[in-house]
Amino acid sequence: MNAQRPPVERLALIGVGLIGGSVGLAARQRLGVEHVVGYDNNPEVLARALELGVLTSIAGSVEEAVANADLVLLAVPVGRLPDVARAALSAAREDAVVTDVGSTKREVMAAVDDPRFIGGHPIAGAETSGVDNARAELFVDATWFVTPAANTSGMGLERLMRFVNGLGAKAQALDADMHDRLVADISHLPHVLANVLVSQAAQTIHSPDGSVTVIGPSFRDVTRVAGANTSIWKDIYLSNRDALADSLETVIGRLGEFRDALRAGDAGTVAQINDRARADRRQLLERELVGGEVCELRVSVPNKPGILAELTLALGRAGVNIVDLALYPTPDMSSGAVSIWVAGQEAAERTEQLVGALGYPVTRA
Amino acid sequence: MNAQRPPVERLALIGVGLIGGSVGLAARQRLGVEHVVGYDNNPEVLARALELGVLTSIAGSVEEAVANADLVLLAVPVGRLPDVARAALSAAREDAVVTDVGSTKREVMAAVDDPRFIGGHPIAGAETSGVDNARAELFVDATWFVTPAANTSGMGLERLMRFVNGLGAKAQALDADMHDRLVADISHLPHVLANVLVSQAAQTIHSPDGSVTVIGPSFRDVTRVAGANTSIWKDIYLSNRDALADSLETVIGRLGEFRDALRAGDAGTVAQINDRARADRRQLLERELVGGEVCELRVSVPNKPGILAELTLALGRAGVNIVDLALYPTPDMSSGAVSIWVAGQEAAERTEQLVGALGYPVTRA
Repeated sequence: MNAQRPPVERLALIGVGLIGGSVGLAARQRLGVEHVVGYDNNPEVLARALELGVLTSIAGSVEEAVANADLVLLAVPVGRLPDVARAALSAAREDAVVTDVGSTKREVMAAVDDPRFIGGHPIAGAETSGVDNARAELFVDATWFVTPAANTSGMGLERLMRFVNGLGAKAQALDADMHDRLVADISHLPHVLANVLVSQAAQTIHSPDGSVTVIGPSFRDVTRVAGANTSIWKDIYLSNRDALADSLETVIGRLGEFRDALRAGDAGTVAQINDRARADRRQLLERELVGGEVCELRVSVPNKPGILAELTLALGRAGVNIVDLALYPTPDMSSGAVSIWVAGQEAAERTEQLVGALGYPVTRA
Repeated sequence: MNAQRPPVERLALIGVGLIGGSVGLAARQRLGVEHVVGYDNNPEVLARALELGVLTSIAGSVEEAVANADLVLLAVPVGRLPDVARAALSAAREDAVVTDVGSTKREVMAAVDDPRFIGGHPIAGAETSGVDNARAELFVDATWFVTPAANTSGMGLERLMRFVNGLGAKAQALDADMHDRLVADISHLPHVLANVLVSQAAQTIHSPDGSVTVIGPSFRDVTRVAGANTSIWKDIYLSNRDALADSLETVIGRLGEFRDALRAGDAGTVAQINDRARADRRQLLERELVGGEVCELRVSVPNKPGILAELTLALGRAGVNIVDLALYPTPDMSSGAVSIWVAGQEAAERTEQLVGALGYPVTRA
């Protein structure tokens, strides 16, 4: 914390789940915000949040919670955002900033045309839920998109960005349209494709030869996000329907192009599309991660308890950070392979040496 | 090994990589096959295979290798299969069986209309490559598809299936058409969709707001198989082009249906498609795995070296088998979540207790 006054003195949280709760903890612990008042539909959640030190006081309604706040943060499901935002703005101070943490931005920005409202979206914490999992460090180094509108107050935007950075996040201003197109491609589209894929496979497998069920590791990876919680995802899909429908349009075109190349037996185009994807994936991963090039190593292992532990311990002791990890067990789980992604050539070489020294075959993928 | 004579006395291996090499080791060690003669384009690979005990002798050509064999196994890339199969059949004994291990079956079956040829496809070992990674246990409990044709000799089919089961695999006879439709959906389509997705994201990210790069865990999972080795996958795609193009046709239709529901703001259809995918995924995973229902648990963890080790060790000591595992680090890798999939309610409850006892928040996903 610097010597400046904290950007926010009175914070109001509407919705106190994982995200709202973590904002409360981080605001108090990292920024020294003195007053954090909360409102949630569920009174038990509010009581628990007070107990955990997320809040300093509890309000009986959205309007009561926001009345004295200089920053209001809405952490409610995307489908409820427009209504809650309107309620908050109706009771908020003239000089307050109202922001949210929803996965899409255009819909809520369009619903509330108010200079006090600035959209927000931290890229963090979708893995668990509930105030019991809240933690002050949730946003450290996470990108936090902030989507101002043309009529957004400059002072309000500065307060919000200082607040977000004060939580440990990296505030990044982005046009709401661009934001929604981005999340359509990197988050919503993967879910749609995974859904389509499982339903496609289920249809083939339930055909007359119904006893055939062999699912490979690629299928498991690609479909891991299939059928995510409908009550959450229905609203996310719908609130981003324009951008997502546009992305689907392009994807359908690309798939059609590949289908046509297959039908024509056009090896050149098939190879070219695969090469392009290879280059694109590598570039995306490299841009994402500190340390440059991401290297994949494949290790053949017996699938005994403790092997993964042994590998990760050996790398951990040597200070090698595992960027990503995937197991490929054989169908009987007796043996298999582990893919380990590490950042940079040096880390890859050390991994090769360390794993080799443990006696497992290791190759660069 | 039972008291019966082994189904094969003289085995010929054409192509001695991971799969061919593992067949050689398993045939010798598990079935007691006395003669394993090999041929490979690469003389160094042959020398190494002899050294490793994969082969008992080396041949100078396909024709020489197969001349005395009662079973010929072709373990060469899919694109070379038709030519190699024709060469092998031209020199093989009248009573020999010639089989292969390619990822697709219709193309090679159509290329060699010979009662001695029976297609094969073990679902194992795509993770590593090369004879140095070969192991006798590679096929234990793996499904091994066998695709006889209408004119296939009964004695030949029996010999092949006894041989495959003798390697520890589970032979499963399947029509070549059905086989190719199945692998189109569970293996080839995931690769195509992953490719399309990375190229789509790359296009959005390389647009004017080029500095934006935020890749979530769902994107990483779905695109892990993107841009797989072009020299291998081009041939696989092309050799299964009819089935894969048909699958793409259906997928394009499904994506169009979802796009239309989005454009129309049709919440009922959006929810229904997501619910169907949820049910389909659960059913596919349950059919795949012994132990019934697969349960997912999410654990919040600091991302310190040793945490994953601690978790997997604790579960390993308690005899809980991890079906699948995914890490979701925060962008700074300082903390995150681990998803653990285990088979059955009992294992899930034990996992919950064990992880809880270590002091990490754990929830059923």
